[in-house]
Amino acid sequence: MENESTKKWGFQVHQRFKTESAITLRAALTSLTENIDQNDSRPTIPLGHGDPSVFPSFRTANVVEDAIIDAVRSTKFNCYGPFFGILPARRAVADYLNRDLPYTLSPDDVYLTLGCKQAITVILSVLLRPGANILLPRPGWPYYETFTRQNNVEARLFDLLPEKGWEVDLDAVEALADKNTVAMVIINPGNPCGNVFTYQHLQKIAETARKLGIMVISDEVYDHLTFGNTPYVRMGVFGSTVPVITLGSISKRWIVPGWRLGWLVTCDPNGILQKSGVVDSIKEYINITSNPAATLIQGAVPQILEKTEEAFYSKIIDILRVAADICYNRIKEIPCIYCLNKPEGSMFVMVKLNPSLLEDINDDMEFCLKLAKEESVIVLPGIVVGMNNWLRITFAVEPSALEDGLGRIKAFYYRHAKK
Amino acid sequence: MENESTKKWGFQVHQRFKTESAITLRAALTSLTENIDQNDSRPTIPLGHGDPSVFPSFRTANVVEDAIIDAVRSTKFNCYGPFFGILPARRAVADYLNRDLPYTLSPDDVYLTLGCKQAITVILSVLLRPGANILLPRPGWPYYETFTRQNNVEARLFDLLPEKGWEVDLDAVEALADKNTVAMVIINPGNPCGNVFTYQHLQKIAETARKLGIMVISDEVYDHLTFGNTPYVRMGVFGSTVPVITLGSISKRWIVPGWRLGWLVTCDPNGILQKSGVVDSIKEYINITSNPAATLIQGAVPQILEKTEEAFYSKIIDILRVAADICYNRIKEIPCIYCLNKPEGSMFVMVKLNPSLLEDINDDMEFCLKLAKEESVIVLPGIVVGMNNWLRITFAVEPSALEDGLGRIKAFYYRHAKK
Ligand SMILES: Cc1ncc(COP(=O)(O)O)c(C=O)c1O
Ligand SMILES: Cc1ncc(COP(=O)(O)O)c(C=O)c1O
Repeated sequence: MENESTKKWGFQVHQRFKTESAITLRAALTSLTENIDQNDSRPTIPLGHGDPSVFPSFRTANVVEDAIIDAVRSTKFNCYGPFFGILPARRAVADYLNRDLPYTLSPDDVYLTLGCKQAITVILSVLLRPGANILLPRPGWPYYETFTRQNNVEARLFDLLPEKGWEVDLDAVEALADKNTVAMVIINPGNPCGNVFTYQHLQKIAETARKLGIMVISDEVYDHLTFGNTPYVRMGVFGSTVPVITLGSISKRWIVPGWRLGWLVTCDPNGILQKSGVVDSIKEYINITSNPAATLIQGAVPQILEKTEEAFYSKIIDILRVAADICYNRIKEIPCIYCLNKPEGSMFVMVKLNPSLLEDINDDMEFCLKLAKEESVIVLPGIVVGMNNWLRITFAVEPSALEDGLGRIKAFYYRHAKK
Repeated sequence: MENESTKKWGFQVHQRFKTESAITLRAALTSLTENIDQNDSRPTIPLGHGDPSVFPSFRTANVVEDAIIDAVRSTKFNCYGPFFGILPARRAVADYLNRDLPYTLSPDDVYLTLGCKQAITVILSVLLRPGANILLPRPGWPYYETFTRQNNVEARLFDLLPEKGWEVDLDAVEALADKNTVAMVIINPGNPCGNVFTYQHLQKIAETARKLGIMVISDEVYDHLTFGNTPYVRMGVFGSTVPVITLGSISKRWIVPGWRLGWLVTCDPNGILQKSGVVDSIKEYINITSNPAATLIQGAVPQILEKTEEAFYSKIIDILRVAADICYNRIKEIPCIYCLNKPEGSMFVMVKLNPSLLEDINDDMEFCLKLAKEESVIVLPGIVVGMNNWLRITFAVEPSALEDGLGRIKAFYYRHAKK
């Protein structure tokens, strides 16, 4: 046997992943977390990501936990499942959306996925042919752009307008679209902006998309997490105007993101997605990639969607409303950041950073790195979601932690403020 | 608004999936199932696929069900998890493999995946650069070849030799390999052959791979499901001779394939995979695709791997041994099929079909289609696993169903036998 150090091995690795892996949201959060001073005895305050499940106030409903236990005990959900999901779960999702729609979806319109994230992967994989382009919101959720670029397809960014409550810049949408544009993406309620689109604005989006001949991909992963004045309306309400792909999951409303159960739903009463081959292509893609969400968790979906009590939903909404208020008011006390729009939905608020008020901080990234190091507070730099010199702050944390975190940001400001 | 029937929409679908989706094992089983006569009042006997979880005799252990319930009640596993898996689960998998290895794996060697299937996807994605080729067993598990071809990489097939108890044809391996060969795949215990490789044979595989400078990907999804004379040995035992990637899951031994929890483990005490960049590439690939198994199920893994009683394992082994015996003996009574090797592991046996003894059946596919139609028995045509005029029979079903199914195959033979 030759020496280990001289032996030649024939495998080289595929280089394609090398450069791409630095850009994710999670990578940004990881490097911030690594920046935290291990000698700081205070608890770290995670205002950077949208997962409140670890906080006692945000424990999921009993009925949701029981749904899993019933599924386990039934022994019916240990088996491999069909690639599009088990029928009772698909039906439950259709019924769940039907509560908010003027027409009736069938279980066949529903595909269960590994969280909303895989639903995004599926629809983008189907649509992003070479030469196509897609319209994405800025600021947005970075995975859309990352995945699009990984597939060598062009992402064209339209702005959400802070001075208009983060509405879509529809003129920009019209200017960006061409004959190779396949879809526009909206996220409603909004991540990172915490905005909620009105009925009238959604209608305009539908009409614009129709005019351009593109479909709307509506990311509704924060569906019904609204606590302001704007009532929640699904994009699918306008499915007769424009074909809509609705994406969602149990991750946010039921606060179980680690269960990895989401859906992709075709909201298209005119059958345009069927006729154009999109539906077949979704099926083929899922058949090929073929790794569905755990049958066990699918088995719990009907009970989760049908049996969760109003009291749980409204408890969470109340906590979020109070948290959004705290956040909004405390931010006013910190001169270097300001918030144009009080959040009305999701778990986030975007605040504008004014580095010119700070002695030794030049941009959002530097702000966040120093904040992590000095105060053990994690906040997401706006650059990660497409907005230089903004910050995304998550208010879905235990209320005491939120107060603590915002207090530390204030102290941080006064320490770094220009004299 | 223009008319729906004349309106032009700009999205076309990506064509790449069109032709590929017919070839899967599941597609074959689906078309057989569709062939079943709806008027047959007898129950369908599914001897086609490896999922006994629906049968009462194959119910998973209590401790396995309890592990999920404890994980739910703890509320600690509702959150997003790290992409490589949570540490206690990675440690539990390392410890589980360490019981069978002459060196010690650390949790860092373990990546949790969505079943063994995603572990396959990960390692093939990392290795299959353009121009590479990979050596796969024939017969084998079709996903390896499907995925390789989908990635436009060449799959070179080496035979498993029925006359040698389905050992690897190592001469063929040597003849097929060249400087672009990255790895060879083995499945042990074997699917579809039900064979178990001896220590000596695994050692020869290791030496051959070393000589060729390729790694061994060892699919051990049926690990410890052995009930013959050959003791179970992991390929990783030879990790000092050749770098080994071990793939596994809780799907088979614990009979919960719908829970989608598997692993990819680098068994490589000399650190060759680290030095050659394979380890970094695995990490990068997982970071990019980034949709891990449900945290909830990861949370149950330590208890599942550590606390399952011997009594459960041996109960299942006893059932499988009896089932394999029944299968082997009953097949002897059916002249048109024969079985060279009594299965010693996994859940399957490969039997050779002799169509010349049959009046109106020309090949394995026709045999299986007619068998489904006339007898409501599903058996997998050998062609799907790479062997024309063979059949793969699953014996992991409720024993009464197995007797019933083999009885129907016998009746089917006598009805179709040449006079
Ligand atoms: C806008 C948006 N879409 C999709 C997702 C992914 O959701 P899931 O965890 O259900 O995959 C997230 C998660 O934070 C999100 O913020
Ligand atoms: C040889 C082999 N490898 C991998 C798998 C996939 O296993 P899992 O269900 O854990 O993804 C199977 C499933 O039947 C198999 O037979």
